[in-house]
Amino acid sequence: MPMIVLFTDFGLQGPYTGQMKAVLHQMTVGTPLIDLFADAPIGNAKASAYLLAAYSLWFPPGTIFLSVVDPGVGGTRPAVMVKANSRWYVGPGNGLFELVQRRSEDALTWDIDWKPERLSASFHGRDLFAPVAAMLARGDPPPGRLRTDGADRRPDWPDDLAEIVYVDHFGNAMTGLRAAILAPNSRLAVGDRTFDRARTFSDLPPGTGFWYENSNGLAEIAVNQGRADLDLGLTIGTRIEIVS
Amino acid sequence: MPMIVLFTDFGLQGPYTGQMKAVLHQMTVGTPLIDLFADAPIGNAKASAYLLAAYSLWFPPGTIFLSVVDPGVGGTRPAVMVKANSRWYVGPGNGLFELVQRRSEDALTWDIDWKPERLSASFHGRDLFAPVAAMLARGDPPPGRLRTDGADRRPDWPDDLAEIVYVDHFGNAMTGLRAAILAPNSRLAVGDRTFDRARTFSDLPPGTGFWYENSNGLAEIAVNQGRADLDLGLTIGTRIEIVS
Amino acid sequence: MPMIVLFTDFGLQGPYTGQMKAVLHQMTVGTPLIDLFADAPIGNAKASAYLLAAYSLWFPPGTIFLSVVDPGVGGTRPAVMVKANSRWYVGPGNGLFELVQRRSEDALTWDIDWKPERLSASFHGRDLFAPVAAMLARGDPPPGRLRTDGADRRPDWPDDLAEIVYVDHFGNAMTGLRAAILAPNSRLAVGDRTFDRARTFSDLPPGTGFWYENSNGLAEIAVNQGRADLDLGLTIGTRIEIVS
Repeated sequence: MPMIVLFTDFGLQGPYTGQMKAVLHQMTVGTPLIDLFADAPIGNAKASAYLLAAYSLWFPPGTIFLSVVDPGVGGTRPAVMVKANSRWYVGPGNGLFELVQRRSEDALTWDIDWKPERLSASFHGRDLFAPVAAMLARGDPPPGRLRTDGADRRPDWPDDLAEIVYVDHFGNAMTGLRAAILAPNSRLAVGDRTFDRARTFSDLPPGTGFWYENSNGLAEIAVNQGRADLDLGLTIGTRIEIVS
Repeated sequence: MPMIVLFTDFGLQGPYTGQMKAVLHQMTVGTPLIDLFADAPIGNAKASAYLLAAYSLWFPPGTIFLSVVDPGVGGTRPAVMVKANSRWYVGPGNGLFELVQRRSEDALTWDIDWKPERLSASFHGRDLFAPVAAMLARGDPPPGRLRTDGADRRPDWPDDLAEIVYVDHFGNAMTGLRAAILAPNSRLAVGDRTFDRARTFSDLPPGTGFWYENSNGLAEIAVNQGRADLDLGLTIGTRIEIVS
Repeated sequence: MPMIVLFTDFGLQGPYTGQMKAVLHQMTVGTPLIDLFADAPIGNAKASAYLLAAYSLWFPPGTIFLSVVDPGVGGTRPAVMVKANSRWYVGPGNGLFELVQRRSEDALTWDIDWKPERLSASFHGRDLFAPVAAMLARGDPPPGRLRTDGADRRPDWPDDLAEIVYVDHFGNAMTGLRAAILAPNSRLAVGDRTFDRARTFSDLPPGTGFWYENSNGLAEIAVNQGRADLDLGLTIGTRIEIVS
């Protein structure tokens, strides 16, 4: 049975995630619903795109990612379904799937042309994307047609993003850089501070800043028994430099 | 299969929501449990009542709302079950269901007279309301008797509340006013600032404050690509004026 | 069907809880997964140990507690399974289960010797502890051997901890003291303020600080219609004195 994984900037609190899950439960009885990120970078499809691409490959083939970071909701941005690496992605065509598409050899993209009975102007996650994710989870064919333009693509975005794209509950700061593209002894710099690579937290004295390959392959800056966000002034969007 | 929807001021973190769900899972195997609001206005049954009435009608008939905003827990407030618009509501009779009852043509209210083996003084959500919600989800008759007084009603509360009743993860500020009762060109004012109506975020330049009908019918004040709470000083309880 | 209960310091947001649940869903289809605490004291196995011991006994026998407060992840701390009071506990052997073990007459502890195909250095919750919790939920024998040393024990920790171990969404401050060990008229003191015992919130005038036995047996300091954390300056680690 496939899982439906939620990747949004809605926050876990408030009514948004719950209403999407109510739609999914009604349309796909018994399908596991997983909250991956409810706090993706708010309104920031670019940073979110690097995060989604890094995290989604950990999930098994067949997983459906209901992905909504959608500051242009109600406007002219397309609504899309992407199949890439045997996984499905449903959400706004605002670049959110750019890295997933680029890193797959066989990505296909459809425009959603299914219309709900009632489409609110501000909550396509509930009214449009959740029903389409449920259809895909049930094994329905994608309710739309293959795209013939690249309105959802962002070819000018880099392959890896040298910025902080997420700060977690511990204050660790994830970059949009895959550790695998960095030389083993690369150092990362923020302003005039540089960080060596370590294997994990317990390898270093308390208070030391370092970077490491996190459990999903991103280069992440952390402070052992400290908070990289507060101790080092890191926040989403902070620029990183790669120092060989 | 009916859903059980949680509407509380408990917060998603901490043990409270989890313990209620443990009760529900044990008593109603396989029933979907939906977190609608875990961050309803803390201890504020009045603001919560307008929020619950607006959001619950979106859910299908048969849904059970386990609703706990209960600053008087352990005191003399009644514990009730309400059937209104083919949906069930279980929780404290402190006004929380006033608008649900008032907006239904056939609302019935029962006092809960079932008693658990052990009733803590401070957590009726887990010990009393969750088991009763589970009974209703299983199709049991309501474990109590029809009310003969109005101790749970608040006839002095207005039909719509001209206040902010919720601020979401984006900083958007929901009022207790149904958009449908406002004239199409109504403006809303807070202090000396007035806001025009718009259809959705992308209709306006970044930084512009406006109000719109949100996806559940409430008038909501927002700032395109901004935060209405911080940019405009809005918080739960802020008074709103309707300017024709 | 047993439940799997999550007790971590991961935060509900971010990817950690979701990835653990994805593992659990795949390995134990249909098992209820309950979020008890996702905000246990960060990196603080000692305070967490008193919280876990107080809350886990409320759950039915057979429950599996996937418990991860693990600042030494990737280092030399053992990885363990504990059976105590007919419940299972899986997580780091850093003292997190000390009070559960001590308060059980028949606690048994195993070292985990199962190894996943891929073990990240920083996320044993997902790669090691979640699969083991799933095995136990399926009824598999514990994948390891009984411990022969006490590397996971902390005999020097007290039976009850006279400190704040958790602050909830309402600002109520839980201590690591079981109310049952306190004399009925004990008072608790923080600095030069003392608090009398009360039964529940509604027994006292608004603004009054007091302590009471919370719904899981811990002594908890609260302020009726106020926030004990802000009004009284309480935070995790604040020392409490027992005044007869």
